Order: sequence, then structure tokens, then C-alpha cells
Amino acid sequence: MEITANNQNRKSWLPVVEGCDFPIQNIPFGVFITRDDIITIGTRIGEYAIDLGAFHQLGYFNGIPLTDDIFMQDSLNDFIADGRKTWRLVRNRIAEVFDKENPNLRDNEKHKEIIIFDVNEVEMLMPIDVGDYTDFYSSKEHATNVGTMFRGKDNALMPNWLHIPVGYHGRSSSVVVSGTNIRRPYGQTLPNGATTPVFGPSQRLDMELETAFITTSANDLGKPINVNEAEENIFGMVLLNDWSARDIQKWEYVPLGPFLSKNFASTISPWIVTLDALEPFRCESPKQKIEPLPYLKPSKTTNSFDIKLEVTLETENGDLNTLSTSNFKYLYWTMAQQLAHHTVNGCNVRAGDLMGSGTISGPTENSYGSLLELTWGGKKPISLKDGTTRTFLNDGDNLILRGYCENKKGRIGFGKCTGKILPPISLNHLKKD
Amino acid sequence: MEITANNQNRKSWLPVVEGCDFPIQNIPFGVFITRDDIITIGTRIGEYAIDLGAFHQLGYFNGIPLTDDIFMQDSLNDFIADGRKTWRLVRNRIAEVFDKENPNLRDNEKHKEIIIFDVNEVEMLMPIDVGDYTDFYSSKEHATNVGTMFRGKDNALMPNWLHIPVGYHGRSSSVVVSGTNIRRPYGQTLPNGATTPVFGPSQRLDMELETAFITTSANDLGKPINVNEAEENIFGMVLLNDWSARDIQKWEYVPLGPFLSKNFASTISPWIVTLDALEPFRCESPKQKIEPLPYLKPSKTTNSFDIKLEVTLETENGDLNTLSTSNFKYLYWTMAQQLAHHTVNGCNVRAGDLMGSGTISGPTENSYGSLLELTWGGKKPISLKDGTTRTFLNDGDNLILRGYCENKKGRIGFGKCTGKILPPISLNHLKKD
Repeated sequence: MEITANNQNRKSWLPVVEGCDFPIQNIPFGVFITRDDIITIGTRIGEYAIDLGAFHQLGYFNGIPLTDDIFMQDSLNDFIADGRKTWRLVRNRIAEVFDKENPNLRDNEKHKEIIIFDVNEVEMLMPIDVGDYTDFYSSKEHATNVGTMFRGKDNALMPNWLHIPVGYHGRSSSVVVSGTNIRRPYGQTLPNGATTPVFGPSQRLDMELETAFITTSANDLGKPINVNEAEENIFGMVLLNDWSARDIQKWEYVPLGPFLSKNFASTISPWIVTLDALEPFRCESPKQKIEPLPYLKPSKTTNSFDIKLEVTLETENGDLNTLSTSNFKYLYWTMAQQLAHHTVNGCNVRAGDLMGSGTISGPTENSYGSLLELTWGGKKPISLKDGTTRTFLNDGDNLILRGYCENKKGRIGFGKCTGKILPPISLNHLKKD
Repeated sequence: MEITANNQNRKSWLPVVEGCDFPIQNIPFGVFITRDDIITIGTRIGEYAIDLGAFHQLGYFNGIPLTDDIFMQDSLNDFIADGRKTWRLVRNRIAEVFDKENPNLRDNEKHKEIIIFDVNEVEMLMPIDVGDYTDFYSSKEHATNVGTMFRGKDNALMPNWLHIPVGYHGRSSSVVVSGTNIRRPYGQTLPNGATTPVFGPSQRLDMELETAFITTSANDLGKPINVNEAEENIFGMVLLNDWSARDIQKWEYVPLGPFLSKNFASTISPWIVTLDALEPFRCESPKQKIEPLPYLKPSKTTNSFDIKLEVTLETENGDLNTLSTSNFKYLYWTMAQQLAHHTVNGCNVRAGDLMGSGTISGPTENSYGSLLELTWGGKKPISLKDGTTRTFLNDGDNLILRGYCENKKGRIGFGKCTGKILPPISLNHLKKD
């Protein structure tokens, strides 16, 4: 099926300013509450949120096999489970209806009032009910930087790293949507030189610049997914900030991996940009010098996407400080390889599962995806516009991730993924017996 | 509120043979399909499965605040979310109605026909929709055994182990109910002496004897749980077999922990035994020589339960071979400490979350909870009744976990947690492009 929604010449009758992340070629999916307190699945064009529940009720999806309430839900899981053919029919239809030559909705003031909202009038919610959240570790630059800090340059990459898209399980309950404030977590840490741990708020709170993909119900338990068919099971992508407490992590992570240092919160951007929308920005994935085992070896070489990524720190006075500029295409292991690896043992993947890329660091110092790397373990503080410095995050810091694709054909973006650090809560309630 | 369901003198009008895991003092909760293809929440007394959906519809819960459809569901999550007060009212009422002196249901043949099934006539399903699955590593004996094998006796326990109930996130999608066959998983392994990994079915497939507890919606994101209030948020317990592919684990687990070596399947027993039912078997938890930090320090010392555990291997000829006899009370870190630790950073816990104990090994060689330990890394094969030996599991082996509490006052048990190993599937579908 042709993805007509990607037609680069199409314009919408809704206004879209130059440089906007959400032209009619994007058509992402999200969940929001309207001014009337109705929760619905929607899409976005320009500065407008479109209520797809109402759009469907008013007949604009006629002819597409959809259940009546598929968009009147508080998560996209059921729609995602409908599969790629349905996603394409829906996205193509939305593009047609909002095409500036199409008068059907354009000239129906009553319907427009029901369907279309100013984005500032709606509140974005979690787009999915995350079944399982997996986080990979697929940036060679990131793994090398971290390895160099911990084990020296010669032993930076673990022996398995070039053979396996290393990953681990995260916590789904604490995945939150952009805009949710993040409490500085408490935990055990081992001070330098000490032999006994202490308890208190994390002193080395970090962000991690990541993307994540969302799967459909991809396979039954016991049945691996072919690496060349893996992308068909990916609905779309979001930005992900995998908040990390480095001091808690250092003390807890041996031998079973990060746990409380990560599971206090992970923030995702609210609009899921479909893999179909990203298709015009497909690009070569890095050449893998060590040939992967056959189950990880795709038949094509264009397995990545050119997605520009940025991290900005907003201090309490409103100053915006760019911390990092990276790109999704730097990732060594591709999404298809991650999904093929995840399922090769028969592990089943469901609609609404979230799979993080791991921190995406680029080759240069200004493209590192975490403060751990940007400040080289806290040894090189970063100077901010307000005259302060940072090694790790301060209370009041607002972290903003952005991601977008841009070429001669146009621009498709993810919007923002933000989270502001709040001071630790009082723990008086832990003291009573 | 008194837990009258625990009255040890009570007898049911339903027959219960001596030594049965399910006397009227147990009243566990599970989900099953009846002979009429109806999915319902139920309980069990003796060899009878009781349809609580029908029981409620026919008025036997009158006076208890419950929604009409609370038991007509395919998971216990909503009932668990109702909280401990409701669980107790429900369990007490079931005990009253099935008390041999109570004629209400006993003498109503029509109602009995609707409500009561032979357990062999129903099919047990997953009792919960697992939100997040966490697995701890809380047996000192197990951690010491594994550490000794990998790093020698002097460095067996990691420095953090006596300070932290070490845990990590598992995969919820592949948690299956007892009786589900387990496919031998494929994966990457590094043969001894090799520098390049190979791909194939796991050759060191192991079981892990564990229990797990199931939580209610315990806390909001950002708010830790007091260790002395933690148990109030635990609905009940099940047996857990955390299947493990040791060869895959060895190659993949550094630095982020086990992933594909564990997430192909984890099996739980179908009946959730409530913490209330286990109360008469409460016992001292091991004395912790290194004093835990205050947030992990309970005010009482009776934080464990005396639950006898057994592992049996059934070979294809039907021979039953006891592999291990252990006890839940050996666990160094208690469930309350695990839950307090899990949430101390603000991580939120939801109704239906599953938290595994980690392999429960006892102090003697015949009480080890995994083949890795029982055969000391494969060096000491186990002789079976049929004349064969095992280091790790063969295709066709059926693993049976059992757990029960028994003292002068009576017996409460979990029934069985079983899984049979099937040979690896054909991977022809991975070969096509």
C-alpha cells in the first residue's frame, strides 16, 4: 500500500508555519484531554490537536475497518494492535481530509468545532499503556565513553558489545509523559573511600538522550521475529529521557544491572511519530565491522533514520542552554536488530511495548547524550548562561529534548520531551513505626 | 479486623482430605475457565473450584461493598486494587458460607451446581495481568554459592549485597501460568575458550525455585513506602520458577544484567495464597548482622513465613525425582524490605505487580534452588531413578515446584507450579529475506 500521507507536495487547510514539527506529512498519534474533559486519541497538524474519536464518529473514516470506539480510549494500544495496514489507511485518510483541496471538513464549521482544538487547550497524556519497557545500550560512542571512564580506554567495550545489541528490562509503571515534574530520588550510595553506604537524595542526577520505539503485538511466545520483518512490527517512535541517578547506579548495579537508579522516572514525548512518517528520512546504518550472527544480519543497509536530536537545559531564570546535539543515525545497532535480538529466544512482544535506544552519543564532545559523558564523570563542569555551572542536574533545572528530521523535502518532528527536577520530598512518613 | 477465615477449628461441608493444600483456612484466589467457557475469578476448597462471579451474583457477598462485576474478570487486578479491608471481608465471608454448620449454600443444590466445579473440570489461567515483574536476589546462600563459583569463596558476596536487597527488572509479557510448556530458547553463547559467539539452542537450561508476592496499588510516583507498612500492600504469594539459560546469561549479562537468558518464560502457580492465610505460619526472619539503613529496618523481628519448598523433576517415564527441599524462611531479605527498597526512590507499585524472591537456596547441598548450584556449575551430575543423569534440563523434563506451610494447627499450600521443556522450534522462518 502506498503511503500517500507522505506526499511532500501536500498542504493542509490548517495553517502550518515554516519549521513546524507537525506538517500534514507527519500525522503523529497521541492521547489528550479536551477542554470538555473528554479523553481521546488524536493527531496534530500545526498548532492544532485533532480529536480522532469525534472525527471517526462523524464518519470521516468511513470505509476503513475500525471498531466504533477504537479512538475513544485512553491509550493507543488497541489501535496499535490493529496492525500496519490499518495505521496506513488511517494516516492516509487523515492526510486526504486535511488536504487544502478537500472541502469536506474544511467547509463544515460545525464539525470543525467538534474535532479541532488549539494544542494549548488540551492536555497531553501518556499515549500508551506500556506493557514492558526495555532499554538497549546501542550507541557505540556512549558505551565506549562510559567504558573508558570506568575501565580505561583499552577495555572500554565489553567483549559482547559488538556481537549483541545489549539491553535490559526497565520499569513500565514510572514511564511518564513530557511535562511531568521529576522528584530527585533518594537512595543508597557509597561515598568515595567509604566502606559503608549512606542514605540520602541523589547528588549525581543525570538525563539520558534517547529515542524509543513502540511495537505492535509482534509474535507469540516462543516465536522469534525475522530481522527483515522486524520494522513491520514497529508503530512509531518517541523521544525518551531515561533519568539516571549515577551515584545510586554505581553502588547498586553489580551484578544484576541498574534498578533504583533508573526506575524512579522515564519521560517520553507525547506524540508518537509513525515509522511511515519517518520513511523519507531513512538512511544508512553504521557499517558493522564485526559481522553479526545471521539472525541479526539484515538484507538491506538502509536501516536507520536521520533524526537530529538536541538537549537543552532551561535554568530557573528561563535561559536556554544547549547541552548536546546528536543524531539517531549514530546508533550502531538498529531498531530491527534490537527487536530481532529481543525475540530470538522466543520472548513475546505486545502492542504498546516500549523499547529505548540507550543513550545516543555522537562522535564529538558536544554530541554526548548524558551529563556523565558531557562533564566526563563530573570532572569538567559545564558553564551556563546564568553564570552557574553544572556537573549533574540541580533542583529547578528543566531538561528539554527535541528531535526532528529535515531535508530538502521537508521537516517532520517529535516536538518536545521535557521534565523539571523538583527537590526531594520530606521522608517523615518513613520514620513512624 | 479479625481474620476469622483463619479459624483453625473450622471445617467445610466440602470434603477436604488430610494433607490437602486447600482446606477452608486457605481460600486462595485464581482465574479459571469453566466447562461452559466462562472466565471467572474463583477460589478453591479441597478438590473444588468455586466460581466467585456466580457466588457474588447469587448474593453471597451481600453487604460487602463490591462492584457487580468485580469477579467476572480475567484477572484479579481490580479486586487486588480494592485493598486489604475488602480482601479480608471477602475471605471471611467465603469461610462462613462454606462452614459445615452454614446451610445457606450447603443445602441449595441449584446454587451449588452453578457455583462449584471439580478442579479437574476447569482450566487455570494467569491470575493477574502482570504490570511489572521485578526479581530480587535475596537468598544469601544462593548469592554466596553463585559468587563462589564465579569469583571464589573469598569474594563470593558483592560489597553491596548485605546492604541492599539487590533486584532487577524482569519481563512481564512472558510470565505464564503453571502447566504451560516451555520451549528451549535459542541464543548467543560463547563456547569455552572461544572469542567469537555461536548461535543455537541453550545447552544449560536451568530452573530457579522462587516464590513471588503480588502487590496492590501501593504508592504514588515519588512516595516511598514505610517498611513497617509494606506488608499491608501485599495481596498474596505464588510459587515462581524463573527459568534461566545459564550459557546465554554468562555471555550477555555484563554490564546490564540478565536479559534473554531469563525473559523467554517465568512460570507461576495459579492460586494466589493471601498473606492473611499465611499469617499463622509467620516466623522470625534471619538476623541481619550488618544493620540495615533505617528505611530497611523493621520494628518487629517476625518478618518471614515458614513455607516448605520442594523441587521435583519428572522424567518422561513418569518417575518423580526430588531435586531440592528448601524453605522460604531462609531468605535473608524479607518481602517488606524488598518493597520498601523498591519504592524508596519513589518508584510506584501497582495492583498486579509481581515481585520474585530470587532463587531460594538453603544451607545444605540438598536445599539449593537451582541446578547451577545442585550440580555445582555442571560438575556434579545428578543421578535420576531412570538411570540417566542431569547437569541441566533435558527436553521432556517436567519440573514441579511445591510449597506448603504445616504445623500442629494445620496446613496451607500453594499446589503445584509445573512446566515441561519442549525441544527448540525450527527457525526456518528466520532464513527468508
